[in-house]
Amino acid sequence: MYRTRTLWAACLFIMATTIMAQEKKEFTLHELIPGGKTYYSHTPENRWYTWWGDVCVEQTVDTLTFFQPQAQKSELFLLTLQQINDQLKEMGKDTLHTLLKAEFPYADKPLMFVQQSHKWLLYNWEQKEIEWESNFQAQAENHDWHALSRHTAYTLANNLYVKSAGGEERQITDEPEGVKAGFAVHRNEFGIMKGTFWSPQGDRLAFYRMDETKVADYPQVDTEARTAAYMPDKYPMAGTASHEVTVGIYNLATGETLYLQTGNPTDRYFSNIAWSPCGKYLYLMEHPRTQESAQLVRYDVTTGIKDAVLLTERHEKYVEPMSPIHFLPWDDTRFIYQSQRDGFNHLYLYNIEGKECTQLTQGEWLVQKLVGFNEKRKEVIIATTEVSPLQTNLYAVSIKTGKRRPLGNSEGVHTPELSESADWMIDRYSAPQTPRCIQLVSVKTGKSVRELFAAPNPWEGFKVPEITVGTIKAADDNTDLYYRLVKPADFDPAKKYPAVIYVYGGPHAQMVQHTWNYAVRGWDIYMAQRGYVVLTVDNRGSSNRGLEFENCTFHRLGTAEMEDQLKGVDFLKSLPYVDAERLGVHGWSFGGFMTINLMLTYPDVFKVAVAGGPVTDWKYYEVMYGERYMGTPQSNPDGYKNSSLLEKAANLKGRLLVIHGGNDPVCVPQMTYSFLKACIDNGTHPDLFIYPGQGHNMVGSSRVHLHEHITRYFEDFLK
Amino acid sequence: MYRTRTLWAACLFIMATTIMAQEKKEFTLHELIPGGKTYYSHTPENRWYTWWGDVCVEQTVDTLTFFQPQAQKSELFLLTLQQINDQLKEMGKDTLHTLLKAEFPYADKPLMFVQQSHKWLLYNWEQKEIEWESNFQAQAENHDWHALSRHTAYTLANNLYVKSAGGEERQITDEPEGVKAGFAVHRNEFGIMKGTFWSPQGDRLAFYRMDETKVADYPQVDTEARTAAYMPDKYPMAGTASHEVTVGIYNLATGETLYLQTGNPTDRYFSNIAWSPCGKYLYLMEHPRTQESAQLVRYDVTTGIKDAVLLTERHEKYVEPMSPIHFLPWDDTRFIYQSQRDGFNHLYLYNIEGKECTQLTQGEWLVQKLVGFNEKRKEVIIATTEVSPLQTNLYAVSIKTGKRRPLGNSEGVHTPELSESADWMIDRYSAPQTPRCIQLVSVKTGKSVRELFAAPNPWEGFKVPEITVGTIKAADDNTDLYYRLVKPADFDPAKKYPAVIYVYGGPHAQMVQHTWNYAVRGWDIYMAQRGYVVLTVDNRGSSNRGLEFENCTFHRLGTAEMEDQLKGVDFLKSLPYVDAERLGVHGWSFGGFMTINLMLTYPDVFKVAVAGGPVTDWKYYEVMYGERYMGTPQSNPDGYKNSSLLEKAANLKGRLLVIHGGNDPVCVPQMTYSFLKACIDNGTHPDLFIYPGQGHNMVGSSRVHLHEHITRYFEDFLK
Repeated sequence: MYRTRTLWAACLFIMATTIMAQEKKEFTLHELIPGGKTYYSHTPENRWYTWWGDVCVEQTVDTLTFFQPQAQKSELFLLTLQQINDQLKEMGKDTLHTLLKAEFPYADKPLMFVQQSHKWLLYNWEQKEIEWESNFQAQAENHDWHALSRHTAYTLANNLYVKSAGGEERQITDEPEGVKAGFAVHRNEFGIMKGTFWSPQGDRLAFYRMDETKVADYPQVDTEARTAAYMPDKYPMAGTASHEVTVGIYNLATGETLYLQTGNPTDRYFSNIAWSPCGKYLYLMEHPRTQESAQLVRYDVTTGIKDAVLLTERHEKYVEPMSPIHFLPWDDTRFIYQSQRDGFNHLYLYNIEGKECTQLTQGEWLVQKLVGFNEKRKEVIIATTEVSPLQTNLYAVSIKTGKRRPLGNSEGVHTPELSESADWMIDRYSAPQTPRCIQLVSVKTGKSVRELFAAPNPWEGFKVPEITVGTIKAADDNTDLYYRLVKPADFDPAKKYPAVIYVYGGPHAQMVQHTWNYAVRGWDIYMAQRGYVVLTVDNRGSSNRGLEFENCTFHRLGTAEMEDQLKGVDFLKSLPYVDAERLGVHGWSFGGFMTINLMLTYPDVFKVAVAGGPVTDWKYYEVMYGERYMGTPQSNPDGYKNSSLLEKAANLKGRLLVIHGGNDPVCVPQMTYSFLKACIDNGTHPDLFIYPGQGHNMVGSSRVHLHEHITRYFEDFLK
Repeated sequence: MYRTRTLWAACLFIMATTIMAQEKKEFTLHELIPGGKTYYSHTPENRWYTWWGDVCVEQTVDTLTFFQPQAQKSELFLLTLQQINDQLKEMGKDTLHTLLKAEFPYADKPLMFVQQSHKWLLYNWEQKEIEWESNFQAQAENHDWHALSRHTAYTLANNLYVKSAGGEERQITDEPEGVKAGFAVHRNEFGIMKGTFWSPQGDRLAFYRMDETKVADYPQVDTEARTAAYMPDKYPMAGTASHEVTVGIYNLATGETLYLQTGNPTDRYFSNIAWSPCGKYLYLMEHPRTQESAQLVRYDVTTGIKDAVLLTERHEKYVEPMSPIHFLPWDDTRFIYQSQRDGFNHLYLYNIEGKECTQLTQGEWLVQKLVGFNEKRKEVIIATTEVSPLQTNLYAVSIKTGKRRPLGNSEGVHTPELSESADWMIDRYSAPQTPRCIQLVSVKTGKSVRELFAAPNPWEGFKVPEITVGTIKAADDNTDLYYRLVKPADFDPAKKYPAVIYVYGGPHAQMVQHTWNYAVRGWDIYMAQRGYVVLTVDNRGSSNRGLEFENCTFHRLGTAEMEDQLKGVDFLKSLPYVDAERLGVHGWSFGGFMTINLMLTYPDVFKVAVAGGPVTDWKYYEVMYGERYMGTPQSNPDGYKNSSLLEKAANLKGRLLVIHGGNDPVCVPQMTYSFLKACIDNGTHPDLFIYPGQGHNMVGSSRVHLHEHITRYFEDFLK
C-alpha cells in the first residue's frame, strides 16, 4: 500500500550511523533550534554574491570581488572595506561596518548603495567620493528607495513621507489615528508585502491608504512594563467590520495627491499593483470581500479614473491573485498575467486590450515565480515544480513559442538572481544531500559555468538519523501525499518506538521538500535522538500541488486535512517498529489547529499532543485569510461550528499541551483562552504554557526553551 | 519534640473507619469542593434565626415563627408566606419569594423589611399592609438603608445618590470618570467594607470620595467577548501613584455637601469612620501611606473642620487600625477603642477628650470583635481567643470593673447575634465534632436556654480520614505553631505515603481552627482518600496570635514563614509513614507566593508544587497591603529583591504548576506572566494553567475543575 522512496543518501546515512555510531556526537537543542547558542555553527555555511550589471560581485564583510562570469577564475578588480573607509575618513565621513549588504543599482556606473543605521549613500569607487547621501529619522519605517530618481518614500508613525533625491522632505498624508498610509494592507494576503510603489520614472508614487477606524482593537497586554500596559492592535475578525483601502497617487512635480476612483472601499480588496511602463497607468486586481472573483483593472493616474477592466476571474470557491502583471521589457503593449484557472498556476500573455494572446505554460505542475526576462532571447525566466512538487527548478520560456529550456540542474530547490541582461544567473540551491550550493549559470546554455560555493555538511560528526521521503495515498484513495519519515537514531528494528506526527497542514505551505535533508526540522532530529519516530505528511490543502489539491478544504477547514493525516497514522501503524499505542502529534498555528483537532476528533488514536499558537475557532481569525477558506460565520455557520475546537472540547481524552505567545498578533491569545474556557466548562483538562511578550512564533532563546518544553511533555506522557 | 494533641473524636473516627471501611462511601470532588454539584448536600445543614426586638424569629422560606427566648418551646405567633402573599395579591402588589431574608428593624413595630429584586418594602403584618416601599434602578449598587429615617444611599456608575424616605431621588455627587463616590476605599484594607455612613439620626450622610485619576490602569482583558475586550482596572502598585481619598458630608436638610478639611489627601489613609451619638461629629483614623502611625481624629460635620486629635498610635513596623470606635450606649462621653499596643488587640475605654480611662481587657489573647453592649448590665460583649488561639468564644465585660463572664460554651468558634436589649443571644458555633450548633443564650446567666438546632454530620457514611491538630515549635525554637494533619484514608502504618503541605501563611488568616473537623479543606480529604498525607501549619505571620507573631515578617515577607514551614517538613519527616522523597506543596494567593518560594528556596525538599494566584514580586501588589508589610520598592529595595520570585527563577528543580485566574484583580496576571518570563530567561520549566474570565479564586464549577487539575498534577508527578 505504501511506497517508500528510499533514496540512496538515506542508505548512506544508515551505513554511516551503523559504522561510526560510537564516535558520533549527539545534538543539543542549542545546535538544532534557531535561537540556540550554537545553532548557526550547524546550519549550512553561506556566501554572498550579487550583480553589478552583468559583472558578478562576491561580497564579504571586508571585500568586494568583481569578476566576469564567463571569465573563469579571473577577477576584474577588488575593493576593500579598508580602502573605502580610508577614503571616507579622509572626507570626514562615517566609515562603513560591512560590505556584505552593498548593492549595485546602476549597471553603467561605479556606484555602490549602502544603508547604514539611518544613513543611505551612493559611493563612487572610481571617483572615491560619496555621490549622494540621505538621512532618515530613527523612527522612519517602510523605506522605499527608487534608484533611477533617488527619491525615497517612507512612513513616520501612520503617515507617508517622501524625501526627494535632493533631500527635500515632504509629508504626503496627514491622516488621523486609525488610518495608515504607505503600509502594506490586507494583512499581507494576496502577496502584498509593501505599501508604496514608485512609477518606473520615479515621478509618481502609488501608495495604499488603509482606514482601520471600524476595525475592533484586539487588547494585547505588555506584561513586562512596570504596570502591565495596554497595547491595542487592530484585528478584523472573520465576519466583523474590516478595514477600508484606497490607493493614492502622489505626483512629485505638482505635490498633489489624487486617489483612484475605485468607488466605495467597504468590503473590497485592492491587490497586485503594477505600473504601466510609460508610468501613466496603474494596474491592480480588485476583488470583493467574498473572494469569489477578481478583476484586473487599469486606472489613469493623471485623473484617477478607471480606464479599463481587462479581465475577470471567477471561481465557485475563491480566486486568489498573488502575482502582479509583468510587462514584456521589449513590448509595452503586452504583459504576463498569472492564473490558476486551469488548475495550476501558469503564465498567460495578454495585451493591453485585455485580450489573451496565448497560454505560455501549462501542465500538471505550477509556476512558483516569475523571475525575470531575457530581452535578447525574448524569454521569460520562471521557477516551477515541473521536476517534482517537492522541488523548485528554473526554466527559460520563449515568449514566441512557449518552448521551455531548463536552467541549472534538475536537483532540489533553486533561488536565482539574474544579472542585468539576464544572460547570467547566480543559482543557489539546496537538495537532500546538498546543504547549499551556489553556481553561476549561463542563461544561454542553461548550464553552470562555475561552482561558486558548496557548503560542507554542517552535521558532519553528528549522529544523524535516517530520513526518508515517500508517498502514501490520501484519504480519497487517489491523490499521492508526500511524507518525510525520521527514524530513531541508533535504530533497532526489533524495538517498538513511540511516534510523533509533526503537522502543519494549512494552505500556502509545504513541509516536505527536496532541500537539504528534505527540510527536516531540528526538533525532529532531536526527537529521533531521544528514540521517537517522527512523521510529517503534507495533506491535501497544502501548497505546490495545484488548485484542486489546495482548495478541496474550502468551507470545512480541517476535515480532509485530518482524514489525510489519519492515512499517515495508518502508515505509521504499518511500520513494525512503531508502537501504535504511543502516538503523539505536534503542530503550530494551522498545525496547532490540526493538532488539537486530531486529538479531539480521534481521541483514541493519539495519546499526547502539543499544539502551539493554534486557531481554535475560525471566527477569531482575521478576515482576509479566514474568509477566503471559510466564508463568514454568518454565511457558513455550519462550517464554522463543525471546525470549532470549542465545540469538541468535551472529547479530550489524552494529554494535550496548548502553547501560545502572550502577544500573538496572528492567532490572538483569545484562541487559546476560549478553548481553555470550553474545556473547563466541559470538565476536560488540557495543559497550557504561555510565552509572555512573544508573538506568533517564539524567537531567540525562548525558541530553545519552547522545544525543551515540548520535548519534556512527550517525555512525560508518551515515552 | 512534637506534641500531638490527638482528640477523642479523632480516635472515634479511626474506629469508625476501621470497622466500617467496606461500607463507607468515597467522596467525589463534587461533594467536597464549593461549586460541586452535590457540595451543599455535604456541608453542615443550617437554620435561620433572627431578632424582632427581644423576640426570636425562626425563618424558613415559607414561615416566620416568633417566640420568646425565655419561654421554652412556646411560640408567640406564626406568619406564613401564603398569608402575606394572599394579602399582597389582594392589594395588587408583587408577592414575596421567601421569608428567609426578612428583617425586623423596629423592636416596637410589627414591620418586616424585605428586599426583593430592586424593590424594598416594609410590611406591617398586623395592619396587613405595605407601610413603605421604594424602588431602585437595576444598575444601582452599594445600597445603604437607614432604618430610622428610611433614607437610602446608593451608587449609580461612579456617583452617589440618596433616595429619601419619601421617594425623592437626589444625585449627591457629579464626579468624572476616575473618581468614585460612595464606594469602599483603600482596597478594603483597614476593615473598610463600605463607602457610606449614615448619621445616627439619618440627617447626614458621610461618604468616601476616591480620586483614582493618578492610578495606573491594569489592562484586564475579557476573552469571552466576540473580539477580546479591554477592561481597564485601576490598580495602584506598591511604590506607584495611589488614589486620593476625601470624606464628604451630605446634609439632607440643606441638600449641601461639604468635605472634611483633612488637608492634602496624597499618600494618606482615612479609615474607621464612626459618628458621635449626637450626630454632630465624625471620628476617623488618619494615617500616612507609610503606615507607621495613626491618629484618632474628630471633625465637626457642620463645618468640616478638625475638632481634635484624640490619640496617636505609633509602631516601628506598622499600625493597622481595624475597628472603629464604639460609644457606650449609656454615655455619650465615652467610647471603646481597640488597639494592639500591648501586643494583642484589646479594648480601651476613652473619653471624648482623648483621655484613656481604662484598659478593659488584657492578656495574651486577643479581642476579635466587639459584638455589642448590654445597657442594663453596663457590659460590652466581645468575641476573643481567650480559650484558645484556634477558637472564638464570647464574653461579657463589665465596663466598670473589666470583669469578664463567659457567654455560651467554651467550645469552638462562635458567631453571636444579640437581641435588641442584648439580654439574649443567638449563638451559632462549630467545633471539631460539631458541624453546626445554634443555641439561645441568656446574656444574664451566660448559659444556653435552648438548643435551636444541631446539624447532623453531613459526612455520615463517608470514608473520613483521621484528622489531628497539634503544635510544633517554630523556627525560633520557642513559638508554638498549630498544625492540622490529615492521614490517608485506609491508613496502613506499614506503608510510606507521599505528603502535601497546604499553605497560606500570610497575615489576617488562620488555616487551623477549632471548627468542624478543624476547618479541614475538602481537597485535603480528597487527597487523603487518594493516599496522601496532608499537613497545614499556621506559621508566624498568620493571625490570631498577637502582634509580634504576625509582624515578625515585616519587610521580609516569606522568610520567617518559610523557615516555619520547614519545621512542618521536619515534622512530616519524623512520621514513619511519610515518604520524605515525595513531598509536595500547594497554596493560593499568599500561599501561592509561599509555594513557589518554598519550591525555589528549598529545591531539594519539595518534588512537586502547585501555586495558585501567586504574588511573585511584591512590586506588582497593591499599595495598601503591600507597603504595610514591605514598604515601597524605593524604601526597601533589598526586601523586595530578596522576596522576589523572579530573582529565584533559575532555582526551579522539581515540578511546579502555576495557576492564575485570567482576570485576577487582586494578584494581577502580570504576577504569573513575569515569573514565567523569568523562568524562560533562566531556562527553567514551570507548568501553567489559566482560568479565563476568573478572578482571584475560581468559583462555580471551575473550582471543581481546578481541584481536579491540581490533583492530577500531584498524581502525575508525586504519586
